Amino acid sequence: MAEAKTGELMEKIVSLCKRRGFIFQSSEIYGGINGFWDYGPLGAELKRNVKELWWHTMTRQRDDVAGLEATIIMSPQIWKASGHVDTFSDPMIDCKTCKGRFRADQIAEIPCPQKPSKMVCECHGEKTEARKFNLMFKTYVGPVESEDNAAYLRPETAQAIFAQFKNVLETSRQKVPFGIAQMGKAFRNEINPRNYTFRSREFEQMELEFFIKPDEAVEAICGKVFKCSVSSVQPEAAGLKTENLQLETPQPNWGWEAWHKYWVEERVRFYESIGLPRNTLVEYWQKPEELAHYARACVDILFKFPFSKRDEKGELKGEELEGIAARSDFDLSQHQRFSGKSMTVFDEELKSAWLKLDPAKQAELKERYYQNRLKYLTKTAKPDETPDQAEKQSRDDADAFTKGYYVPHVIEPSAGVDRLALALICNAYAEDQAPDEKGKMETRVVMGFHPRIAPIKVAVFPLLKNKPELVKRAKEVRDLLRPHLAVFYDEAGAIGRRYRRQDEAGTPFGVTIDFDTLGEKGPELKDTVTLRDRDSMKQERVKISELLPLLLEKIR
Amino acid sequence: MAEAKTGELMEKIVSLCKRRGFIFQSSEIYGGINGFWDYGPLGAELKRNVKELWWHTMTRQRDDVAGLEATIIMSPQIWKASGHVDTFSDPMIDCKTCKGRFRADQIAEIPCPQKPSKMVCECHGEKTEARKFNLMFKTYVGPVESEDNAAYLRPETAQAIFAQFKNVLETSRQKVPFGIAQMGKAFRNEINPRNYTFRSREFEQMELEFFIKPDEAVEAICGKVFKCSVSSVQPEAAGLKTENLQLETPQPNWGWEAWHKYWVEERVRFYESIGLPRNTLVEYWQKPEELAHYARACVDILFKFPFSKRDEKGELKGEELEGIAARSDFDLSQHQRFSGKSMTVFDEELKSAWLKLDPAKQAELKERYYQNRLKYLTKTAKPDETPDQAEKQSRDDADAFTKGYYVPHVIEPSAGVDRLALALICNAYAEDQAPDEKGKMETRVVMGFHPRIAPIKVAVFPLLKNKPELVKRAKEVRDLLRPHLAVFYDEAGAIGRRYRRQDEAGTPFGVTIDFDTLGEKGPELKDTVTLRDRDSMKQERVKISELLPLLLEKIR
Repeated sequence: MAEAKTGELMEKIVSLCKRRGFIFQSSEIYGGINGFWDYGPLGAELKRNVKELWWHTMTRQRDDVAGLEATIIMSPQIWKASGHVDTFSDPMIDCKTCKGRFRADQIAEIPCPQKPSKMVCECHGEKTEARKFNLMFKTYVGPVESEDNAAYLRPETAQAIFAQFKNVLETSRQKVPFGIAQMGKAFRNEINPRNYTFRSREFEQMELEFFIKPDEAVEAICGKVFKCSVSSVQPEAAGLKTENLQLETPQPNWGWEAWHKYWVEERVRFYESIGLPRNTLVEYWQKPEELAHYARACVDILFKFPFSKRDEKGELKGEELEGIAARSDFDLSQHQRFSGKSMTVFDEELKSAWLKLDPAKQAELKERYYQNRLKYLTKTAKPDETPDQAEKQSRDDADAFTKGYYVPHVIEPSAGVDRLALALICNAYAEDQAPDEKGKMETRVVMGFHPRIAPIKVAVFPLLKNKPELVKRAKEVRDLLRPHLAVFYDEAGAIGRRYRRQDEAGTPFGVTIDFDTLGEKGPELKDTVTLRDRDSMKQERVKISELLPLLLEKIR
Repeated sequence: MAEAKTGELMEKIVSLCKRRGFIFQSSEIYGGINGFWDYGPLGAELKRNVKELWWHTMTRQRDDVAGLEATIIMSPQIWKASGHVDTFSDPMIDCKTCKGRFRADQIAEIPCPQKPSKMVCECHGEKTEARKFNLMFKTYVGPVESEDNAAYLRPETAQAIFAQFKNVLETSRQKVPFGIAQMGKAFRNEINPRNYTFRSREFEQMELEFFIKPDEAVEAICGKVFKCSVSSVQPEAAGLKTENLQLETPQPNWGWEAWHKYWVEERVRFYESIGLPRNTLVEYWQKPEELAHYARACVDILFKFPFSKRDEKGELKGEELEGIAARSDFDLSQHQRFSGKSMTVFDEELKSAWLKLDPAKQAELKERYYQNRLKYLTKTAKPDETPDQAEKQSRDDADAFTKGYYVPHVIEPSAGVDRLALALICNAYAEDQAPDEKGKMETRVVMGFHPRIAPIKVAVFPLLKNKPELVKRAKEVRDLLRPHLAVFYDEAGAIGRRYRRQDEAGTPFGVTIDFDTLGEKGPELKDTVTLRDRDSMKQERVKISELLPLLLEKIR
């Protein structure tokens, strides 16, 4: 029952996205290309607004984050170091009857090519063994198609941040703790793209790598590391935490746990600020056995999409919008080893604090730092590296640590733009009852976007198209607003129908220029316009001279 | 002499770009990857500002342009229709001695791999015959690496606009004439990337396709087509025209010539508005023999880069920033034929105007329309299309035209973001003399960016770092400005050195909080700050309460 309803809702959303120009199938006139989606005029603006707000919040509004814009094609060595060449794969099986290729772990959820109404398990065909399929798109750079010239389309934007860490550090006047932010396209050759734009082969990411001191350095400097009130890894997948609210202003005594929780809370605050209420989100703490070996903790922020699976109580479980991972010093360490270039920083504070520590404390911190390095180096050893080498390197790293040198740790909030855009669209979709031109109630479709992310902020209408005075005045109002806001000017059709079109576009405000504006009904309403609110459908009279500041205030 | 100077200038620019974080080599820690460049914190902001202004100017400030954001990987059929699969190639030759691969037409300009100080012609090795090398990067979509699944990274953003033309038309409430704008990454597997970021393998474009009525439709509707004062194709490569200044407000009687010149002039105005004066640009009208067979005219806007070649008078010739092409109805017609989907529009105005024309005029216009279609269909015939078919199709098209149907023509202003960013950097670079801390004159490097595109708009400095009152007040000023402007806060080092760093970053304004601000030298200067101008280095006292509006006005 609930499944059918959400399926129907998703169909309505997909239909509106096509009809109003939010989302089109890529290459539609050629039958499309599976897993690729284009954004039409409204969708492109929605995405731009989301990205602009993310960039603004994450970099421009902060002193401690610098931006980066790296290429999609990078040296293939980067993907060796990150592990993507060896392990970024899904298990794939073929069905010998229907000839479909399926992700082995999703075979029960994907339609059979021969009987699209049935899941492949209904096909009862013989299946091959599962084998690994690397999800990176491969190409060749330069005129020779040899393995030497093979390169990959980046499957994530994060690695470029690690590769350029030293360049950014040296040119940006930043000191640890600080972050590097990047937005951009990434590509994954998904075996079975699905759920509309949710799992597609080309998508856009917004990633921050926030570099922090190792806990041993924080302890050396501050005496002890700030203890968070909740334990680091939450084994139960629970609802949103409020304990983190205390973590609003970064402090020098924060270790990785506090920084991690701070970023979880920052990101949830961001989603709230663009109109996704907390009750539409789920904060999922990965269980210890789900974590990568180098990860200390990872929180997924899920949105309850209509196509999400349901738990035993019938509640939507949610699908991932963003992951916030505490990744230790794994990433920079990997690039240090694979490139041979140092990724350590020198920390003046650590060096001077160290000299003031008593020898027992020094020994304790050094030993902990040594053990962490040894664990990393042992777990990631290359075939030509011996246990002796790992031990010696760890000793050297611990010695360097006592002189103020370390490889920074990192907290990574990594979000998908397309998933967020789809969440905003799903969350905005609503139907209510409103009177038509003749006063008869009809179903109104309204996209209730937060004004901050609405593709169009205000629509401007002359009441009638064939009255030059109204049209002239309406165009003046348009020109007054347009340098500051995204404005849509529309003069065609009955005013009620024009309102409805803007409701479907999610435009929060409508301004109508009528005969009162011209002063035809007396001087008191001259130079005023009707300002209509999308959600309440209420209208008020506003002086043209007060319109711009009023709208800017409402949209802020 | 002049060559040596510009070479030296370019070296200084490249060095500053690395030192200050504008541009880094992609994957530098792994030895780089030829033809790929990353943008550091300042470069990323510069690019963002350029793109934001383009988008604002081209879409949000206009009623007649809609935005689009399509995928990089599209159906390979698109590149069949556009001609890229068959003809988008450069001639390549190998040198059997130095093993270099070279663009045959640039062999004298590219260093020899074995003797990088020499041009390849010095190598005197035996060369292979030139052969075609397709510049599109190829990959495979889905789990099977077969030719059926081959796809390309788009070599330009334009084709997605044509492929989605009907979807945008139907959802955006636009009517011809109107445009579709798109920005995004494109890829060309250049044989020899060169000139720093100018010719790279991954780059970003800003493209507008502006769809217009065929001249025959304009003539039917308006009686005659507006005659431009200068001839359409300027065979001589001349300086910038001013005759086009009259073409500021689009008119219904404009044909392709007027629209083409309008867009040339609009684009030059755009470059001026972001700080590239007309005298740094060259407007190059392609000669008839240089035009593609379907193009009516094409103007390249060139910038005089330091690495440009020189003409016989020793003047820099310039390199292309943007091409503005009048492409007839070629593109939409190609996609109509290859996809089998109609790309015609119905023009109510044409239909009703047609009925009022006298039969002789009707016959004349219909014949001209027929001839144009026939020419297009004949020149682009596929192997399985006969002359008879082309003639019949042209007759059908001309019949449809008399009922108000046609394939729109297009004007295409197509600009490169990276080239523009590099032009802005080259144009901004300057050296002058300024006093150091002790009053001794020294060389000052200053990036004179227009405030609109400067990565940082204003830097905020407390005079001294170790006076909490100054730091507190400075942070208040930072927080006052930051929601509205890109601010950089810097408290480290002597104030003169902090100014110099911002000069190199191209920050147009600096605000210093000093003891006067705190009222320590009396009440009249209390709550005022020093506002320093980057270019004149002059300082004035400004009330904090007046700072934000003053800066916003200067930056607008």
